[in-house]
Amino acid sequence: MNVGIIGANGYSGVELIRLLQQHPYAQLNYLASHSSSGKLISEQYPHLQGVVEDRIEELDINEAASKIELMFFATPSGISKDLIPAFLDKGITCIDLSGDFRLKDGALYEKWYKHTQASNENLQKAAYGLPEIFRDEIVGSTLIANPGCYPTATLLGLAPALENGWISPENIVVDGKSGVSGAGRKASLGTHFGEINENMKAYKLGSHQHIPEIEQSISALSGTLHPITFSTHLVPMTRGIMCTMYADLEVKTTTEKLLKQYEEYYQNNFFVRIRPLDTWPATKEVLGSNYCDIGIKVEERTKKLIIVSVIDNVVKGAAGQAVQNLNVLNGWPEETGLTVTPVYP
Amino acid sequence: MNVGIIGANGYSGVELIRLLQQHPYAQLNYLASHSSSGKLISEQYPHLQGVVEDRIEELDINEAASKIELMFFATPSGISKDLIPAFLDKGITCIDLSGDFRLKDGALYEKWYKHTQASNENLQKAAYGLPEIFRDEIVGSTLIANPGCYPTATLLGLAPALENGWISPENIVVDGKSGVSGAGRKASLGTHFGEINENMKAYKLGSHQHIPEIEQSISALSGTLHPITFSTHLVPMTRGIMCTMYADLEVKTTTEKLLKQYEEYYQNNFFVRIRPLDTWPATKEVLGSNYCDIGIKVEERTKKLIIVSVIDNVVKGAAGQAVQNLNVLNGWPEETGLTVTPVYP
Amino acid sequence: MNVGIIGANGYSGVELIRLLQQHPYAQLNYLASHSSSGKLISEQYPHLQGVVEDRIEELDINEAASKIELMFFATPSGISKDLIPAFLDKGITCIDLSGDFRLKDGALYEKWYKHTQASNENLQKAAYGLPEIFRDEIVGSTLIANPGCYPTATLLGLAPALENGWISPENIVVDGKSGVSGAGRKASLGTHFGEINENMKAYKLGSHQHIPEIEQSISALSGTLHPITFSTHLVPMTRGIMCTMYADLEVKTTTEKLLKQYEEYYQNNFFVRIRPLDTWPATKEVLGSNYCDIGIKVEERTKKLIIVSVIDNVVKGAAGQAVQNLNVLNGWPEETGLTVTPVYP
Amino acid sequence: MNVGIIGANGYSGVELIRLLQQHPYAQLNYLASHSSSGKLISEQYPHLQGVVEDRIEELDINEAASKIELMFFATPSGISKDLIPAFLDKGITCIDLSGDFRLKDGALYEKWYKHTQASNENLQKAAYGLPEIFRDEIVGSTLIANPGCYPTATLLGLAPALENGWISPENIVVDGKSGVSGAGRKASLGTHFGEINENMKAYKLGSHQHIPEIEQSISALSGTLHPITFSTHLVPMTRGIMCTMYADLEVKTTTEKLLKQYEEYYQNNFFVRIRPLDTWPATKEVLGSNYCDIGIKVEERTKKLIIVSVIDNVVKGAAGQAVQNLNVLNGWPEETGLTVTPVYP
Repeated sequence: MNVGIIGANGYSGVELIRLLQQHPYAQLNYLASHSSSGKLISEQYPHLQGVVEDRIEELDINEAASKIELMFFATPSGISKDLIPAFLDKGITCIDLSGDFRLKDGALYEKWYKHTQASNENLQKAAYGLPEIFRDEIVGSTLIANPGCYPTATLLGLAPALENGWISPENIVVDGKSGVSGAGRKASLGTHFGEINENMKAYKLGSHQHIPEIEQSISALSGTLHPITFSTHLVPMTRGIMCTMYADLEVKTTTEKLLKQYEEYYQNNFFVRIRPLDTWPATKEVLGSNYCDIGIKVEERTKKLIIVSVIDNVVKGAAGQAVQNLNVLNGWPEETGLTVTPVYP
Repeated sequence: MNVGIIGANGYSGVELIRLLQQHPYAQLNYLASHSSSGKLISEQYPHLQGVVEDRIEELDINEAASKIELMFFATPSGISKDLIPAFLDKGITCIDLSGDFRLKDGALYEKWYKHTQASNENLQKAAYGLPEIFRDEIVGSTLIANPGCYPTATLLGLAPALENGWISPENIVVDGKSGVSGAGRKASLGTHFGEINENMKAYKLGSHQHIPEIEQSISALSGTLHPITFSTHLVPMTRGIMCTMYADLEVKTTTEKLLKQYEEYYQNNFFVRIRPLDTWPATKEVLGSNYCDIGIKVEERTKKLIIVSVIDNVVKGAAGQAVQNLNVLNGWPEETGLTVTPVYP
Repeated sequence: MNVGIIGANGYSGVELIRLLQQHPYAQLNYLASHSSSGKLISEQYPHLQGVVEDRIEELDINEAASKIELMFFATPSGISKDLIPAFLDKGITCIDLSGDFRLKDGALYEKWYKHTQASNENLQKAAYGLPEIFRDEIVGSTLIANPGCYPTATLLGLAPALENGWISPENIVVDGKSGVSGAGRKASLGTHFGEINENMKAYKLGSHQHIPEIEQSISALSGTLHPITFSTHLVPMTRGIMCTMYADLEVKTTTEKLLKQYEEYYQNNFFVRIRPLDTWPATKEVLGSNYCDIGIKVEERTKKLIIVSVIDNVVKGAAGQAVQNLNVLNGWPEETGLTVTPVYP
Repeated sequence: MNVGIIGANGYSGVELIRLLQQHPYAQLNYLASHSSSGKLISEQYPHLQGVVEDRIEELDINEAASKIELMFFATPSGISKDLIPAFLDKGITCIDLSGDFRLKDGALYEKWYKHTQASNENLQKAAYGLPEIFRDEIVGSTLIANPGCYPTATLLGLAPALENGWISPENIVVDGKSGVSGAGRKASLGTHFGEINENMKAYKLGSHQHIPEIEQSISALSGTLHPITFSTHLVPMTRGIMCTMYADLEVKTTTEKLLKQYEEYYQNNFFVRIRPLDTWPATKEVLGSNYCDIGIKVEERTKKLIIVSVIDNVVKGAAGQAVQNLNVLNGWPEETGLTVTPVYP
């Protein structure tokens, strides 16, 4: 199956290239990027020398549509919503890694993203591509809204407890920590080495655009809509997201019992791993892979459930999940091309 | 004034050495360490070559008492409680950087620290050395329990809101993040470079020994005792602690108003700096200094107050605060020897 | 083909596990480690949870020999020389990642490694497993001495120029820089995070045990034996080695010409990539992969050739090269199981 | 004494601010920066909140001259050469941290810096501000060319051996490694966290603009002019430079003997520390301080002297040396305001 990437020059785009190299059924046949068109991808990323030597093109929709059956959009927010309708018209399946089609309520998108929304028709058509939770909606779809990095880690951590009513959907606190690659490859003072190294920063407290995305799925899982308290922090590392979540327990239980229930919930999901009692995941333990590792703890003194969830933001938080969605869409085994072992140390 | 350090070979000990070099009234006159006695401190720490060339001694209480008026204990937990009584008997003032005298309730110490407690008499005699909040108790004391690193960042962040009833003491969540120097200089797999670098880990969820210390002061500030939900994480950096705190607001207010009230609360406290509206502190902005920087945000959607507090764990979280206590005890200006500008970048 | 690993618990061992997971013809069937026998490998390395759940065994040569055809020795120096004879006797092919069989001159081994040498017979039997240069000697061998990390980067950088006489074998200076994983997983002050992070150190100047290994191959390539000036430095990163080499030019040439000649020399070698004019390799561009990237510069002002060579020390400098040797031994395409794209960023 | 800074918003400028805070005789009375004029310095650098709250001004030479007696120029190359003549005319002493006045030969400046040279008169008037070697020329000067970071580390390492003829000035190889702050605060892909972290890069091989500056001083020290082989590398850390130097020995000697001779050479120089036998300096051991630490090794096998020299590039490599020059100019003890202990760990 021939596929293409728009936004190939960013970190999500280049990670798609890496993962697709190892995919037995998908063939990369089109690379576009506005900022670097005309150049070889290996000039932009010397680690690809001898691996992928394709030239990056200025997007031409007709040409693209003639070369591929499915397009990945690894573009910043506000771009794909204007491109995707034309691709859908030509029968091209679209997997969008940006936030443009994630929120069913277009007004919410406009409020949090400060862009004009996509058409309501396409918003409703888009499937939210978190296969572990919404697999059924993905199958048969032609437009996938690939989830954000923080929402992926958060929702996989919360889903079993929310869906089963073990925790209340009210009063959830999510403390997110991210490596710097989440900010993309564009140089800025905020991602300058001297400002980030040996430093930890809080940012966008209570105002991150992933908040409504998380709330939308919490509502779907629990049946009621409640705001969450959500904060984000930058960690001096390149890859990795950790979300530590705090929720009020609704049941009398123990860590042991909940661990078993979490394992059962995810038993047929290759990419979710539940950590044993009294051990906690670390971001490096998923580096380069599509795993989401989860540890939980019943804090009896305060009747809270503490959940720690980690992913590689560039893989399960972006490109890897996009390939997982490609697999789901095609009925291929979900781990096809994604069975890579994390790189450790 | 002649002072000494027991535990001079650890990171807190060597930071005391650095800070005392710049102190106009204190003179370092005794260095002891069991693990490295007989060696020059500059052999253990080549950065001290030409700065401090003293030899580290095996502790001899009589000799020590003859050379100094005040002793800093930079020892692991469980050591100073057995040494300090003899020093007190000889009229030596003691500043203890370990956890041995922080908890008024000895039973709590035994539960969380797994050591036998100090005598109840000495526990009651010890002043909790967080000057910004408990300055009056420190003045005139002969035994100071220097606070833990997480409690310092947490309590300075919570104090204005707790003391004034702007937040509830119930349902407080503290998400702590620490650089690796907090674990000391002893080599272990958990502090091995390959395991920490480009990695973020959660540890001791709900079981960190700083929990009862924080709760004791929350109780003192708010008048009621409630358990907190407290988790800790290791960040791939050497120095710095950030605590992000989430509390239920008890009043209708705005971030602007609370910022002013925080500024007023700390107006005579040299080392606390309140960040302007919509800006957040970063750990590197206090590196090498005794500052505690605080940012706050009223999250209107969930009626929570989010507080971000950062310190350099080795300075305000250990050695710097010990020197600050030295100043308070002697009636010297509190910032004496501590006016150093953070090292940035 | 069934293979095993002795020393499975170290960084080279666990990297062999990762790489062998992706190998189509080799099946991992035996894991041994003295320090962690009886434990699951996934307890020691949680990133392997769900990937490899085998138990680590205490070495039993008979049992091992019954389960595998080829054994990888990922042990510290001084161990494999005493184990390998028994395996050879049983007809097991041995690939040794330690330094025990690399030096043909046993006396040199004793001088630089401070261990008793292996038998001279086995030293002569061992093939030096740097396929790009000594491929013919590897084919048909039953004992492979897998090269050291610094020698791999150094020799691949020097080989074309030495073999063709473009540089003199006299007066070569090699300035090596290594990530910390090269020191293994054993905790020590020298690999403690607080001592390494935001730090660069020189170590073992002129006394590194890789010096005679490099000189032995320089002599093989150039026909004459000359000592090299070799220094090593620790860089605050986990993976990666860079060797910058300085040699006296014997011919009048240009960077452009030499680049072409380097490309020709390595044209049938999948894992060596020559950087284009005026660009230089970076360690991260080979991270997680078996590539060796090389850049060169003719310094006309001083008649020197400057060569920069980078590898991932755990892959091409250890486990990856061992798998490459496995492929060569078996007549499989050399890149089998090793076509992974570097992980970037 | 009132002093000012032009280019206050860069890393060298802000380090000057930090160091001058601790200086007993110098008073900062003027801050200018083109890129951030009108803003508070503490907005640009929140770590200065409460420490320095001055507003950055757009440069006005008359106003500046009325407020200060001495000006530091912490500007990029090509700026100060056009500003300094006007300041000199007004009798203001100038300390220039850029490369504009370091080369006596203006043509060399034009070749390596690609800017028009300063007037020959001013080039000859400028004293090269490396006090340990050229102290006599600094005293009484009105224009100081503060040395580059690599030249400072290199020349302090080479000076004793070159001046005494222990090594040959021919065939010197300098392998430089630098932290990223050397590239300044301007955001670029080359200093983007994701490109630098866990990475080591070579750059500007044989073409760094510090080459003629080093050669000029080697010539002054040895009496003959020879080109050096000089390469530079970027290390994933913020601060610190290490230069490893390789030179041909001209005398039969031992490491012990040379160590004593190095100590004698620098015996009256507060900021140079010679490491004991078989120990080597590390960059973190000088972090935040004005020290230059040097280790040496006689490599008997190749008749080379290996010298390792480290500095904090922002302090001894820029702002600290500028303050040291301020002290020399004024006849104050050279370490005034610079006695800070390195920040370790």
